[in-house]
Amino acid sequence: MTEEIVVVEGDGIGREVVPAAVSVLEAVGDFEFVRHDAGDAVKEETGEALPQETYDAVAAADATLFGAAGETAADVILPLRTAVESFVNVRPARAYPGVEALQPETDIVFLRENTEGVYAGHEDRLSDDLSTLTRVVTTSASERLAEFACDYAPEGFHVAHKANVMRETDGRFRDAVTGVADEQGVETEEVLMDAFATHVCLDPGQFDVVVCPNLAGDVLSDLAAGLVGGLGLLPSANIGSDNALFEPVHGTAPDIAGEGVANPSATILSAAMLLDHLGYDEEGTAVREAVESTLADGPRTPDLGGDATTEDVTEAIIDGLD
Amino acid sequence: MTEEIVVVEGDGIGREVVPAAVSVLEAVGDFEFVRHDAGDAVKEETGEALPQETYDAVAAADATLFGAAGETAADVILPLRTAVESFVNVRPARAYPGVEALQPETDIVFLRENTEGVYAGHEDRLSDDLSTLTRVVTTSASERLAEFACDYAPEGFHVAHKANVMRETDGRFRDAVTGVADEQGVETEEVLMDAFATHVCLDPGQFDVVVCPNLAGDVLSDLAAGLVGGLGLLPSANIGSDNALFEPVHGTAPDIAGEGVANPSATILSAAMLLDHLGYDEEGTAVREAVESTLADGPRTPDLGGDATTEDVTEAIIDGLD
Ligand SMILES: CC(C)[C@H](C(=O)O)[C@@H](O)C(=O)O
Ligand SMILES: CC(C)[C@H](C(=O)O)[C@@H](O)C(=O)O
Repeated sequence: MTEEIVVVEGDGIGREVVPAAVSVLEAVGDFEFVRHDAGDAVKEETGEALPQETYDAVAAADATLFGAAGETAADVILPLRTAVESFVNVRPARAYPGVEALQPETDIVFLRENTEGVYAGHEDRLSDDLSTLTRVVTTSASERLAEFACDYAPEGFHVAHKANVMRETDGRFRDAVTGVADEQGVETEEVLMDAFATHVCLDPGQFDVVVCPNLAGDVLSDLAAGLVGGLGLLPSANIGSDNALFEPVHGTAPDIAGEGVANPSATILSAAMLLDHLGYDEEGTAVREAVESTLADGPRTPDLGGDATTEDVTEAIIDGLD
Repeated sequence: MTEEIVVVEGDGIGREVVPAAVSVLEAVGDFEFVRHDAGDAVKEETGEALPQETYDAVAAADATLFGAAGETAADVILPLRTAVESFVNVRPARAYPGVEALQPETDIVFLRENTEGVYAGHEDRLSDDLSTLTRVVTTSASERLAEFACDYAPEGFHVAHKANVMRETDGRFRDAVTGVADEQGVETEEVLMDAFATHVCLDPGQFDVVVCPNLAGDVLSDLAAGLVGGLGLLPSANIGSDNALFEPVHGTAPDIAGEGVANPSATILSAAMLLDHLGYDEEGTAVREAVESTLADGPRTPDLGGDATTEDVTEAIIDGLD
């Protein structure tokens, strides 16, 4: 059976890096690609950043590869994470040999809770002066995340939170996550999210897998991106029970969009995560290795100090598959 | 009139670095010091981490110098911020010549909202599975912070927030802050807090003063601490309308407490902020300069690779005054 992969390029360089990643996927497997729209451009045309048919297609697909959306990013990506019923956002942040990094020994995977926290936040305007947001934490979502984390990192993981202030909500998160890990005999170490922000700069090598609430995962993974040289190389996966969506962590890069020089590596690494997820482990590994060796000594796009095009880099990666 | 300064050493190295800072204050002015207890030790004795008389004394003082508290940190520092009716937490993070830093050009002052956000969060356990926290944002607190920011940084500042997700609450914060700045003709630039986390690593020099909601300020200032080499050198001020509390950003450092080798610089720099606040501008500047020149070529405590004691460093700073 040919897997159906929905492809949503979105805006800006999404339209350049997603086709690049699709050509890599075509080189390693036999997939059916179905294209759908989302983002600023489709909103301009139709009034809707996320057309219902895109939502439905993503919800029904085996997997989705998404690029980036501009101003409408939150209106697109948050519902799409819901469409695939994603309970965890997997965000690896690692430095690559040959790419300049502030902290070259960074190699951390963030497992970010992907359904609640402030993102499930019901907001109210209670008066002219006062607004509130109801932050939500459930034991069930935290345990679901913890089960994934125990599979992903049986050797143990860190749990980042702010339970010294958010005692009831982050306390619940912490207790649920460490409770599941304890039951499964997986070691955990707690770290306050503010302390993590300091420690990860000073000594990133001490962290391997970090489990966090939704907003903490958003900010701390972007921090780690800074340590490895920027968002340009970071892939991510939104994993659900029967479905998943893969996206580079970077945005639409309006300054270089349309020039054909966007770095496709983050999206191609996201495609490698997609391959892993669909069970094409060998192919996933091959793509990852080809990206790594291209980063180490292949052509480079301008963001990495070279003058290669998106196409040059993509071809080098495809040539490097074997 | 002799100003009354309440001194709360707290736990761990608080008991070493606060006396060091007091001796520096004694060297530059004529203050009345009144000592009070708070923290783990007093909790062990009395059952209360923050005795009412400490709270009352801090609320009535001209200014307070606080050290650090251990496990009870949140139970001590959060009420004490309330005691001084602090609406802004001023957190400078800068690299010092002679001290190893990941990003030596970091020189950022965070102006952190100090009364609300998740810190004013009312939490509820709604069921066995579900807890909520009500995050609070008011226009009045945001405007109060913005007025301070406009005085502090008339040349302009950044506003960090997550209004693309917390549209009503952080949207209110952003609109209130930029609204006041616009009225006063002060330039502002918005930055999403996650994007800030990446950008500050890559290029801290682009940021000068950053205004943020409470939890964002907590995490982002600790991140900047990582870029300048750790929490060891960071002072902070909790400013209220008629009162203020000054504290190093570091904690109790139980691993070295009692050995007399804690680095007193952060607390002495906090004392310099206290001097500024009480109008002793020249003295504040003199203390800051003495700390800087001691950091550059004076004795060093073990955290900075030396083998000097707290007392050696404090004496060097006092010798270096004027
Ligand atoms: C665009 C935004 C809503 C999103 C988030 O906050 O999750 C982005 O920052 C991300 O991390 O994918
Ligand atoms: C101890 C804790 C409650 C406190 C905070 O979150 O504000 C600390 O992290 C700080 O930044 O001073």
